[in-house]
Amino acid sequence: MHNPSSFFSDRQWELIKKSVQEEMKSSPASHGWDHVRRVYELGLKIGKKEKADLTILALAALLHDIGRKEEQESKGKICHARVGAEKADGFLTRLELPDPFKNEVLHCIRSHRFRGNQAPKSLEAKVLFDADKLDSIGAVGLGRAFLFAGEVGARLHNAHRDLSGTVSYSREDTAYREFQVKLIKIKDRMLTHTGKAMAEGRHRFMVRFFERLDEEVKGKR
Amino acid sequence: MHNPSSFFSDRQWELIKKSVQEEMKSSPASHGWDHVRRVYELGLKIGKKEKADLTILALAALLHDIGRKEEQESKGKICHARVGAEKADGFLTRLELPDPFKNEVLHCIRSHRFRGNQAPKSLEAKVLFDADKLDSIGAVGLGRAFLFAGEVGARLHNAHRDLSGTVSYSREDTAYREFQVKLIKIKDRMLTHTGKAMAEGRHRFMVRFFERLDEEVKGKR
Repeated sequence: MHNPSSFFSDRQWELIKKSVQEEMKSSPASHGWDHVRRVYELGLKIGKKEKADLTILALAALLHDIGRKEEQESKGKICHARVGAEKADGFLTRLELPDPFKNEVLHCIRSHRFRGNQAPKSLEAKVLFDADKLDSIGAVGLGRAFLFAGEVGARLHNAHRDLSGTVSYSREDTAYREFQVKLIKIKDRMLTHTGKAMAEGRHRFMVRFFERLDEEVKGKR
Repeated sequence: MHNPSSFFSDRQWELIKKSVQEEMKSSPASHGWDHVRRVYELGLKIGKKEKADLTILALAALLHDIGRKEEQESKGKICHARVGAEKADGFLTRLELPDPFKNEVLHCIRSHRFRGNQAPKSLEAKVLFDADKLDSIGAVGLGRAFLFAGEVGARLHNAHRDLSGTVSYSREDTAYREFQVKLIKIKDRMLTHTGKAMAEGRHRFMVRFFERLDEEVKGKR
């Protein structure tokens, strides 16, 4: 993991990462440290191209899912973006990050789960949003969708599953339904130019994957 | 699912399939009825091209994993190919299948898990072997590898995992290790011309998938 040259020394960045990783040990696997690492790398890459502040972005990427444990334990009643921002506030205060900086980071965390209420306004919040969403699509998104299907005991493929409606995930479900219901829409939600271009490539790869899966399931290739 | 025109009427084929499906209800998901359906379709497709006997092949494909439950319950001590052939013997006797026919089917089942002792000798046994192995690779194989990783709580990707050795599957493992240790070798084990050609295409698709996964994990695309 690269460090953005900035406010903190390399030594400090390593300590920050270690303590976030420690904090995330009991997070759900699908949104654990591996996901955070990928969003961090993607965020820095997009952030450089979009000329965002990389210190704000790096801190926001590292801390964006720090509230997942609380969301899971509350069975979804607590929003991880809201509680994550609260936890991050304490964390960043201990790092003696100046208030204006800290508030920028907290805005990114609060708005990364954009569902109409807290929209990403700053450039850094938009980049974090895109990096987080990009990690749900492409080859990574496919792997995560099947991994999640395996975690809940779902099937490999089920062409007869009704794709409409909002019934919760069951053994009759598949990664294909996840794609049709959610992942297929992500490329149109990107907020930055760089994020949009990357999402197009990842989207096309998923489409080709499911076309091939379908042909193979029918014994055609 | 198509029926091969033969010894049994369409009505009889449907009854045979129903009773196998019923028998497999408590099989492990990775080798359950969905897998059997795919191997059946693949087997008939390859069997037609290779001019194999489709009745023998269809029965062998439907029954080939009927001993998986016993293998799982015995924690691997019982071989599913051996116990599967025993169970299939009773099943085929009840169908009043003539002995020479029945023995051909049982040979396919016994030898589909070729590990040096019971090699597939007949054309039908070779086709079943290829169809079963093909279902571990390609887009289907990728989906199954991630699904299985999810079932055992493994990670999405772990480039630092030691790929050598034979330690059993753990949370530190990934579908990529399954690919490197097992799936990568399958194309060279095919026994029929048609199976080999299909395996090449499926193999290339897996290679491209993991190349892309690796680039995405590093934030490069």
